[in-house]
Amino acid sequence: MGQPNRDTATGTVYLVGSGPGDPDLLTVKAARLLEDADIVLHDKLPGPEIIEQLPDDRSEDVGKRAGGERTSQKEINERLVELARAGKTVVRLKGGDPFVFGRGGEEAEYLAAHDVPFEVVPGITSAVAAPGVAGIPVTHRDHTSSVSFVTGHEDPTKEESAVDWEALAATGGTIVVLMGVGRLPDYTAALREAGMDAGTPVALIERGTWPGQRVATGTLETIVEVRDEEDISPPAVTVIGDVAGSREAVVDFLANEVGDETSASAPTEPEE
Amino acid sequence: MGQPNRDTATGTVYLVGSGPGDPDLLTVKAARLLEDADIVLHDKLPGPEIIEQLPDDRSEDVGKRAGGERTSQKEINERLVELARAGKTVVRLKGGDPFVFGRGGEEAEYLAAHDVPFEVVPGITSAVAAPGVAGIPVTHRDHTSSVSFVTGHEDPTKEESAVDWEALAATGGTIVVLMGVGRLPDYTAALREAGMDAGTPVALIERGTWPGQRVATGTLETIVEVRDEEDISPPAVTVIGDVAGSREAVVDFLANEVGDETSASAPTEPEE
Repeated sequence: MGQPNRDTATGTVYLVGSGPGDPDLLTVKAARLLEDADIVLHDKLPGPEIIEQLPDDRSEDVGKRAGGERTSQKEINERLVELARAGKTVVRLKGGDPFVFGRGGEEAEYLAAHDVPFEVVPGITSAVAAPGVAGIPVTHRDHTSSVSFVTGHEDPTKEESAVDWEALAATGGTIVVLMGVGRLPDYTAALREAGMDAGTPVALIERGTWPGQRVATGTLETIVEVRDEEDISPPAVTVIGDVAGSREAVVDFLANEVGDETSASAPTEPEE
Repeated sequence: MGQPNRDTATGTVYLVGSGPGDPDLLTVKAARLLEDADIVLHDKLPGPEIIEQLPDDRSEDVGKRAGGERTSQKEINERLVELARAGKTVVRLKGGDPFVFGRGGEEAEYLAAHDVPFEVVPGITSAVAAPGVAGIPVTHRDHTSSVSFVTGHEDPTKEESAVDWEALAATGGTIVVLMGVGRLPDYTAALREAGMDAGTPVALIERGTWPGQRVATGTLETIVEVRDEEDISPPAVTVIGDVAGSREAVVDFLANEVGDETSASAPTEPEE
């Protein structure tokens, strides 16, 4: 794999998406790279089932440090270069896809600027998979011609208005908010102010494809109350649009199991 | 897998995403289901490498009929129900993700309405993977807070204005157009009319992750000419936004190989 005509002393870094969390939704390539890599750098976002399968002696948790602080992006970048220059085959494992709100773009730029060959291994973003396994298609010919992904965790250095909720509402398409539990009141209010109908269906999928996945549904008007009643907690994906209401027609025949045997006792039906 | 407490006489239908086309980007679960299924219904969208791996005696091409016409969605729906009622374990294999412009939502509804248990197996959409393996992150903290997916193949029964290009332009986020080669002149013009800068970077990724993948880049002003000069043909994904320009900084160190050995002689570098 990779690096034709390159200095063989430098290892390759694989920026690998883990998918939404179910180990069965790893790609064939990701599963093989996790077996073969000299070292895997990861945080908590790939989810508990994938992380517990990583071999202790070949994995580094860069999601937090001893003091409870997060490892900075700069430190992760430097560690990737250091390991590659030591000749290691490095997997940088990221939840979902490395290029969908995953900061993979920054890591790719840093690696290239430091002459380190890298490869991108896409993964399934939870923006698609979490609604999907819950029976919600993010696009549907009867309902929508587009889907937009945004993050509820805004970069704090950006101005408050970085996400243009008014423009998103105007697209008429499905809106999927990643990491959107905490700021749910803010953006549902913004969408209503932008003229989106208060009755627009909204679904929250907590821990999508993880053991204990839960789904809660409501409308733009009611979903904050639903969130509080059901105690929906991060990580969760929010789906806003008519497609969120289409789940009801199919859920009784949706045979999806979630994760491994630990999910057998967990609710996979909505608790509405 | 699946269907607890259900009539065991009826088989389960798995709505499975194949991912973008590289067999290595199938999920572990999709690969296993393709091995185990009694029958696989597919069209051409999963791409040549995955299709040629399907066993002839257990697969049905529902993408076209003897006369060259496409099998209608209604016929596909009916065939899925027929096979499940015959007790078969059925894989309905779809390019990318079944719920991203894949008509999986319609199939799910039809199956549920006919009492057939089904499971959704997400796949990687080419809207993320094709740009990704070409070194283009669809989101990037420096450039964009959102990404929107639309299809260039509009449902002909919809009104011309079903995709609101003006609203998409106003989001300020990345726009990814699936199946967007033919109508490239139409929507680039619409985006310019909506006020998007003529110098906005645009990339076309032809046959993303397939053998012979090609990338062509330009701007909102030049990309139609680039498409014609490079003879970019379907299937291809269009990426519009500043992220499309970030490829240049990384491409020399991008070690991604595409598909199998047949790609060794195909250009994986941009032909600009």
